[in-house]
Amino acid sequence: MATYVNPASARTDGTDAIHREVPPEQQAVEQRLLDDVVASFGGCGDQRLKELMVGLIGHLHSFIREVRLTEEEWGAAIDFLTRAGHITDDVRQEFILLSDTLGASMQTINVNNQAYQGATEATVFGPFFVEDAPRIDLGQDMAFGAPGEPCWVEGTVTDTDGRPLAGARIEVWEADEDGLYDVQYDAGKRAGRAHLFTAADGTYRFWGLTPTPYPIPNDGPVGQMLDAVGRSPLRAAHLHFMVSHEGARTLVTHIFPEGDPIGRKDTVFGVKDSLVKRFEQQPAGAPTPDGRVIDGTWSRVRFDIVLAPGDV
Amino acid sequence: MATYVNPASARTDGTDAIHREVPPEQQAVEQRLLDDVVASFGGCGDQRLKELMVGLIGHLHSFIREVRLTEEEWGAAIDFLTRAGHITDDVRQEFILLSDTLGASMQTINVNNQAYQGATEATVFGPFFVEDAPRIDLGQDMAFGAPGEPCWVEGTVTDTDGRPLAGARIEVWEADEDGLYDVQYDAGKRAGRAHLFTAADGTYRFWGLTPTPYPIPNDGPVGQMLDAVGRSPLRAAHLHFMVSHEGARTLVTHIFPEGDPIGRKDTVFGVKDSLVKRFEQQPAGAPTPDGRVIDGTWSRVRFDIVLAPGDV
Repeated sequence: MATYVNPASARTDGTDAIHREVPPEQQAVEQRLLDDVVASFGGCGDQRLKELMVGLIGHLHSFIREVRLTEEEWGAAIDFLTRAGHITDDVRQEFILLSDTLGASMQTINVNNQAYQGATEATVFGPFFVEDAPRIDLGQDMAFGAPGEPCWVEGTVTDTDGRPLAGARIEVWEADEDGLYDVQYDAGKRAGRAHLFTAADGTYRFWGLTPTPYPIPNDGPVGQMLDAVGRSPLRAAHLHFMVSHEGARTLVTHIFPEGDPIGRKDTVFGVKDSLVKRFEQQPAGAPTPDGRVIDGTWSRVRFDIVLAPGDV
Repeated sequence: MATYVNPASARTDGTDAIHREVPPEQQAVEQRLLDDVVASFGGCGDQRLKELMVGLIGHLHSFIREVRLTEEEWGAAIDFLTRAGHITDDVRQEFILLSDTLGASMQTINVNNQAYQGATEATVFGPFFVEDAPRIDLGQDMAFGAPGEPCWVEGTVTDTDGRPLAGARIEVWEADEDGLYDVQYDAGKRAGRAHLFTAADGTYRFWGLTPTPYPIPNDGPVGQMLDAVGRSPLRAAHLHFMVSHEGARTLVTHIFPEGDPIGRKDTVFGVKDSLVKRFEQQPAGAPTPDGRVIDGTWSRVRFDIVLAPGDV
């Protein structure tokens, strides 16, 4: 049996956390329990499920043994999960926030979206996507009255050989200038979100809002956790995209405005350098690409999207 | 950085699960994210909390990377936790059931109740303890009408030097013959539970019920998990004890009847050999220790309890 070393631990002396402090008889008691638990999954006919459960149990038990988890700490964990469950409803998803703030969501994205040639990088999905966003035509406004500075967004969707993808479905969604998504006001409200399809030449364009930083919902247990460890609840400003096309790997990503001071301190670890884009601020009165008259400043950004093939 | 090996995995070729299948550039992306997440806890002033969070994150990320968790599986995990949260209320605690069935509760008990001389071993607390069980005098009945075969329970509470502990508080609770605790009928019901205090000579005695095996509540996500992996939801028959005395380590344990076919297949891994006791079946009409007239069979068991000092 290999000696367990947690690669994320700060121990640098090469010794093992469990073995250093615990007498051999006690180690044997703990190991026997782990063996019993693993053995209890021996009859699982679904090999993948078995692999997941045995992997989970190995890490769960190693964690408890390494940190010598106290019963009070165990109780606090049960209480945390209970409160996370109770605050979660159709529009508030505390477990996704937890996964996001521990980097687990982003790591899952990494694992499933290995870099492929020049394909656009993926980032976290977040808890605010809804299935039934309204359809807009090319060039229309997805804000639907959500407050914020208008932003003209345009680009192309191509495959990794540079071929335009016609009729690619683009879902876009974002928070308003007050940092809130439509569903945070009212589960039935739809604003700051839409879907559209690329033209025959693979191009797309729409009006949205210039993204602004905002805190994740931090009035629940995840917010308390961030507070307790001295972390900010702020997300880097961003605009969500989900882009799909037959035969292509569906891309879930954001774009982030260049110069956002939150940047890589994004509380959900979603920022990748390749997704940071220049949002060009336009003065009040500057003519817009489609002749729309805007009473104030606006911005524009270009985001050319490259989809990996579906089978990689 | 040490190569990570999950000690619970079935791999025997000494290779590392992450490194075997993943190209180096991808490993670097995943490692950089983990480093960023760990760094985000760098400002945590509470060193113990920091240790817990960094340990948790290391294992969580290693798990995701080793099993190459799919986005669908991640979604299933979020859904599982959400359903567990929603079924949990004041009397149903699905997260404790989850911890119990993954052996995490028992491992926490192990870690915190290292064997000390002849002290009685601890086992899982379970989700059915309540604070306000009625007080009974020595020799009284804790069943309070709960159905089942009467069982005379007696013994002593001593320290590890064999000195009787007078006035030790004993909380006892158990399921009825239908496998249900009082609070599963009605949150306010109190039956099959009580507390009592040892006499000046450290002895105690009370009437309870002969324990019978029963399933943990299995109409929720934990039950579905057990079903999916081919595990039984049955707990070995048991009677709960929590014993406390000033200056002693509080003992949370059960006793288990000898000969129970569930035995070590207990779904929460609570059975330890030293806690298996002989419940002697008595024929109908056999005279009872206190002259109580019982219309049918009854049983008796002796459980001598040894408390470790409070400072070990």
